[in-house]
Amino acid sequence: MNPKRIEALDGRLKHFGFDGAILIPGSTLYYLTGYSFHLMERPVFLLVVRGQTPVIVLPDLERPRVTASPSSLELFSYAEDDASRSAALQKAIDRVSSTALDMAIEPLIMRYFELNLLRSAAPDWTFRSGDELFSALRARKDPAEIEHMQRAVDIAETALQKTIPLIKVGMTEDELAAELVVQLLRAGSEPDLPFQPIVASGPNSALPHATPTNRRLAKGDLLILDWGARSGGYVSDITRTFALGEIDPEYSRIHQIVLEANIAGRSAAQPGVTCHAVDLAARQIVLESGYGEYFIHRTGHGIGLEAHEPPNVRAKNMDPLEAGMTFTIEPGIYLPGRAGVRIEDNLHVTDGGARTMTSLTCTLDLVG
Amino acid sequence: MNPKRIEALDGRLKHFGFDGAILIPGSTLYYLTGYSFHLMERPVFLLVVRGQTPVIVLPDLERPRVTASPSSLELFSYAEDDASRSAALQKAIDRVSSTALDMAIEPLIMRYFELNLLRSAAPDWTFRSGDELFSALRARKDPAEIEHMQRAVDIAETALQKTIPLIKVGMTEDELAAELVVQLLRAGSEPDLPFQPIVASGPNSALPHATPTNRRLAKGDLLILDWGARSGGYVSDITRTFALGEIDPEYSRIHQIVLEANIAGRSAAQPGVTCHAVDLAARQIVLESGYGEYFIHRTGHGIGLEAHEPPNVRAKNMDPLEAGMTFTIEPGIYLPGRAGVRIEDNLHVTDGGARTMTSLTCTLDLVG
Repeated sequence: MNPKRIEALDGRLKHFGFDGAILIPGSTLYYLTGYSFHLMERPVFLLVVRGQTPVIVLPDLERPRVTASPSSLELFSYAEDDASRSAALQKAIDRVSSTALDMAIEPLIMRYFELNLLRSAAPDWTFRSGDELFSALRARKDPAEIEHMQRAVDIAETALQKTIPLIKVGMTEDELAAELVVQLLRAGSEPDLPFQPIVASGPNSALPHATPTNRRLAKGDLLILDWGARSGGYVSDITRTFALGEIDPEYSRIHQIVLEANIAGRSAAQPGVTCHAVDLAARQIVLESGYGEYFIHRTGHGIGLEAHEPPNVRAKNMDPLEAGMTFTIEPGIYLPGRAGVRIEDNLHVTDGGARTMTSLTCTLDLVG
Repeated sequence: MNPKRIEALDGRLKHFGFDGAILIPGSTLYYLTGYSFHLMERPVFLLVVRGQTPVIVLPDLERPRVTASPSSLELFSYAEDDASRSAALQKAIDRVSSTALDMAIEPLIMRYFELNLLRSAAPDWTFRSGDELFSALRARKDPAEIEHMQRAVDIAETALQKTIPLIKVGMTEDELAAELVVQLLRAGSEPDLPFQPIVASGPNSALPHATPTNRRLAKGDLLILDWGARSGGYVSDITRTFALGEIDPEYSRIHQIVLEANIAGRSAAQPGVTCHAVDLAARQIVLESGYGEYFIHRTGHGIGLEAHEPPNVRAKNMDPLEAGMTFTIEPGIYLPGRAGVRIEDNLHVTDGGARTMTSLTCTLDLVG
């Protein structure tokens, strides 16, 4: 349990007008408690009601993992049958309140399964999105969190440097992805990677969310690697684009444009500047080059305990950046059926500006 | 798209009294379409209404991945703003019906986020759990699925054999877990492992769901390894327990009991036998040994595209096994604060009985 973060949640709940919050396994539950449970068919609920000791409901077999003292967390556990599960949840509900409460939930995490159990156990309560609340709670990273994130960046960069010499024309995307994962683990990433690396070659590189295939790397390909590490629970998320031998001159040109867009986006970031303005700074470069229609996604997204979290660095998001925020800048140009380029760095907003956490060069290196 | 499976879904929908189903990214969507999307903040919906061409709603940037012909899948995609997203979903809803529909959803997958979008777009529709329907749809594996699963077992076994010589007293659980992951990838597992391996040593082995820690392996420890591979999307899930040098004689005794329980559970499995009876066959051995209270979980769970799926091999589940089902048998004894033993095999129910897919020995091998 992290009493300071529980206290901060308490304040946020008050500010946003909720009586409390109900969390199921995920990053916010980990952020508050330090516990990471499997999100499976045995539900876990954390109930945090303002001014009260938090309560957790979990399966008997997870009970030994919770070492918190009764003063910081009250525990109700259940056996392998539905009746026992319902009884434990009912006890927890009754424990925190005898009246109806208005509870914040995480819309991207909370499932129909848990919501249904909650509605049966507490038919008078309301459960509604506390998205903004939870975003605000976790958005500004403290120095210990930044340290984990910098380590996650360093591990990812080491892994790439070990992988580059292994890239050969003729190997498959799948094989290269497996090598990259091996190098991430050897470099010290926690095994629960933030996401499976993207290895996209040739025409596949025109797909921003390509998953590796059995396509063999070929001369003349552009090759996108998009990978990240995890350290202390926190992630990195980096992309670099490589050339396999001699390439179409247009590919070099779009690489240069994306690089300039990346630099423009990174340069625009500082406290008080809106996400909209940062997105625009990068996008403007691509628009002016004439490739605007091929930059088909936002400029970046927040990173932290999750690979995608606020702030959402896209047009129309008028939220200002704040010191402590961490996010990606990742403009791209994708020529359908031919090739794509993306260059992604990780940024940390500081009091006076923004620091690029990544240190790898952004040049179009020849590999293979 | 898999037209045969869409047709099978159609039949199930009729049988269970639904007008259709709405799926978001997960195993069932993959099972039906062959597409695996990230489950993130950009929603994807698959709408399958009885007797109609399925419809998918997805972000523009995922559009190029969908190669199905218009006759097998209709597609509505949206740009990076909420208005475009709502419009695409509305078009899809209007496309499949002008009247209110009763739709099946997956309770363990569907999130509050998507459910809310659906309720806004189709306020008259009902969305309710189709859990049984989807379980029934995917429960009986076809020969191609069994082939993938056998390969996932073989990969996991090869990885273990490569890992055993690397186990040394003094190394941490984290280090051993990373080695096991490396060996899984080298042996050919898809990088999206079914779960992070459990490496639990000494007192940690008494925690069924332990996550690896920085605890160093020590002489006299029991060591539980619980790991699996993925091949063609399908998983394996195996557990073996090892002894680090000379151990407490009671530990050898509980290993022997768990081994007998494992064999009893496997021997009981065949078509027509209930999950309850299989659970009981294994549990009885532990109960009679006097360690019943330390076998704190069910005997097993289904495996397939997911590491945990039906059938649920536990007491009180009176569903009979059917040919084609695949599941684990994994009795365990956990002595709190001291040590634990679990032995987990993977089974495939055949017409005449059940085949153990795992081939590793179950003896208490000395390592370190």
